[in-house]
Amino acid sequence: MKSVEEYIQSHVDEFRERLFEVLRFRSISADTSCGGEIAKTAQWLVDILKPLGLNTELIKTEGNPLIYAETPRIAGAPTLLIYGHYDVQPPDPLELWTTSPFEPTVRDNNIYARGSSDDKGQLLTHVFAIESLLKVGKPLPLQVKFLFEGEEEVGSASLSKYLHDSSSKKKLAADCIMVSDTCMFGVGQPTITYGLRGVMALELTVRGPSRDLHSGVFGGSVTNPAIALAKMITQVLDENGRIKVPGFYDDVLTISENEQSQLATLPFNEDEFYSKIGLQSGCGESGFSTLERRWCRPSFDVNGLTSGYQGEGSKTVIPSLASAKFSFRLVPNQSAEKIAAATKNFFDSIKPDGVTIELDYQHGAEAMAIDPAKSRFMKPATEALERTFGRPPVYTREGGSIPIVAEMANVLNAETLLIGWGQDDDNIHSPNEKFSLSAFQNGILASAHFIAATKALGSN
Amino acid sequence: MKSVEEYIQSHVDEFRERLFEVLRFRSISADTSCGGEIAKTAQWLVDILKPLGLNTELIKTEGNPLIYAETPRIAGAPTLLIYGHYDVQPPDPLELWTTSPFEPTVRDNNIYARGSSDDKGQLLTHVFAIESLLKVGKPLPLQVKFLFEGEEEVGSASLSKYLHDSSSKKKLAADCIMVSDTCMFGVGQPTITYGLRGVMALELTVRGPSRDLHSGVFGGSVTNPAIALAKMITQVLDENGRIKVPGFYDDVLTISENEQSQLATLPFNEDEFYSKIGLQSGCGESGFSTLERRWCRPSFDVNGLTSGYQGEGSKTVIPSLASAKFSFRLVPNQSAEKIAAATKNFFDSIKPDGVTIELDYQHGAEAMAIDPAKSRFMKPATEALERTFGRPPVYTREGGSIPIVAEMANVLNAETLLIGWGQDDDNIHSPNEKFSLSAFQNGILASAHFIAATKALGSN
Repeated sequence: MKSVEEYIQSHVDEFRERLFEVLRFRSISADTSCGGEIAKTAQWLVDILKPLGLNTELIKTEGNPLIYAETPRIAGAPTLLIYGHYDVQPPDPLELWTTSPFEPTVRDNNIYARGSSDDKGQLLTHVFAIESLLKVGKPLPLQVKFLFEGEEEVGSASLSKYLHDSSSKKKLAADCIMVSDTCMFGVGQPTITYGLRGVMALELTVRGPSRDLHSGVFGGSVTNPAIALAKMITQVLDENGRIKVPGFYDDVLTISENEQSQLATLPFNEDEFYSKIGLQSGCGESGFSTLERRWCRPSFDVNGLTSGYQGEGSKTVIPSLASAKFSFRLVPNQSAEKIAAATKNFFDSIKPDGVTIELDYQHGAEAMAIDPAKSRFMKPATEALERTFGRPPVYTREGGSIPIVAEMANVLNAETLLIGWGQDDDNIHSPNEKFSLSAFQNGILASAHFIAATKALGSN
Repeated sequence: MKSVEEYIQSHVDEFRERLFEVLRFRSISADTSCGGEIAKTAQWLVDILKPLGLNTELIKTEGNPLIYAETPRIAGAPTLLIYGHYDVQPPDPLELWTTSPFEPTVRDNNIYARGSSDDKGQLLTHVFAIESLLKVGKPLPLQVKFLFEGEEEVGSASLSKYLHDSSSKKKLAADCIMVSDTCMFGVGQPTITYGLRGVMALELTVRGPSRDLHSGVFGGSVTNPAIALAKMITQVLDENGRIKVPGFYDDVLTISENEQSQLATLPFNEDEFYSKIGLQSGCGESGFSTLERRWCRPSFDVNGLTSGYQGEGSKTVIPSLASAKFSFRLVPNQSAEKIAAATKNFFDSIKPDGVTIELDYQHGAEAMAIDPAKSRFMKPATEALERTFGRPPVYTREGGSIPIVAEMANVLNAETLLIGWGQDDDNIHSPNEKFSLSAFQNGILASAHFIAATKALGSN
């Protein structure tokens, strides 16, 4: 691998220049005026994959195009699907950026630009790794497939649709899906994420009188919808922080003792974690550690409340309606559909007199987790990361959800490794997004090592 | 009184024309651009009072002027202070008015205009009553004082300040304050209102993390401020609809058996009351009738809720703060100050872990009620109303608050009669405000009868 390492070392400036090219495209999927920039970004990806000899396709969809590329199938060897997304978040508020979001700039060994960490910079590490392996004449020990989409920031609708087509299922078939769209568990600490929580977002609307009422004339004689809503929300959690929706925990897998002790060894500084968000300590479900609460246990949060008068001062009305946007984070084996139905029944059963309720389902995605002990790809990934970073990786879950990743894992029945090069303070989705230059270089190197290390799986 | 009745009868068209004049002024106290119109309205009032021979003053304040006028003191006879307000609510939304809010129009025997019922039309009934009595040469059996303000719709700050000045206290000294700024208990049903609830408006803000958090990354490990707020709100009322703030009921007077049976005889159609606001039935404190709940018992209402994301769709954040605007309606003998302090202590004692709270006092006004049995002026008022409307009045309270009325009653230590000519469907504070022509004429007549009937009090 010495030749590959040298190749990467001597080409890293060129790789960075090419990353800068693609960062200049305003491929903002939420902004419908960016269609032309999206198309340029997609074409740019085709133009760097094709010259590598990969069978490359720009797949048109009802939305933004998918980019697919593959190396030849190798008999007896597994297939690796590398997923990434080339669309980015809107850059607003623009005035908070030190330098322009679409003019990449290096400061303090970081590349500042929208999409640098999420996800163009991370996505390209794998492309440049394959390029480096091929350029130095290293044969790939397994088939590599690239799948890049342009709608991750707006819900991945086109990829989700494409995924369920039987011919694409065959095309995308893989033993392992690798994704670099997450963070490392600390600077320089390689990390393999083997689980994500699911999510379900709902809105509960409570309706009372047909119009806002004068609280003097009516106060005390009707059910106040805002109070009724508060009562219903309060009943979701018990005093131990457990969700009281009947059946909610039926399908939740217990955390194995093995995983418990593994999580306990992670270098997690709880005080620092809470002080960063202005809190002295945490709260949550009794009997679980903070990492378990965030990664392995479901949670309930109210995301927004709205009712009545919200302007300056006071207006003494009884609001005719009140609503709460709320969400559950789900864990492996929970069905979003089942939980949605149970939640509806629960709210129907606790609805106070004098109001009617409405529960709107907004979106849901299931959780995903693999058992690291049973993974074939964990070993080569671990070796590659240790070799690159000089220390062994940690194994983590994430509390957030990447719906399309869980969906791909389920549809393609593949194991999934999330190996991110990002850092907590990369400001993804915020002004001054950045990506560390060393993370970029190490990402290319680690990806190349990983591909090379899968050779051991060849005779499987 | 026959001559007075005839005078009113023959001048009612002229009275209406004069009401139309003052309704054309856009005396909107909430709109700072209306200063000129306010001044014109105040001067117009001076110009109709002065020619009656009343000692009339336009009293400048830091805000809108007060109008004061008095007839001579009559030795041995009591003094009656007649209060009203010449400012009006903004007319918005303009597009919902059938005819222009400041161009009074008669349709179906109603005068349509902003301020027709609230309060220019009601205020003028007393001016025209005195005018009629004086014009036919009827000597007034008691001293009459008029006090009109121009800030009732925005909190009566200038009158409140003026009231507490020792020289004005002397000037305004009265045995009875009469106010026509309320409604009759049904069409053609004369009504004397002998009590008003007080009000206290507060805002509770719950703060958690220093910024909105990603509900995936943090969900389950921090206290959600919106849930904490819901919990606190839920604890204010017990299962019987009683307010759980310690000491809240300490000073509340029980409703006398006498009053209970009196209220029970009122022609109150509960089904109609609730169906008008889109409800099938009411809810409230156990053990009390709907009228008792609305008029004689305190109440708690949330007036507004705000937290987190309130736009379309969903955003899975843990909001960094949540707040509720809420209010209590208070009843006689409760001190707003005491209740505010008790509420603060209560919320401090139930605050969930992981959040901080802030309670802002917005405004408060105490309740007021007189004992009809002990009132000197109730008898002449009852006689006057019965004579005018051909049926005896009913005696009611109101659930709403007119802070300045309670304040005047307390500061001047006078009994207070609220005798309104309005109707429930007058659309005060709404588009298409109206005032019934017959209520206007009957108001003038009843006021004249009342003044005449106070003769019986002269030798007191």
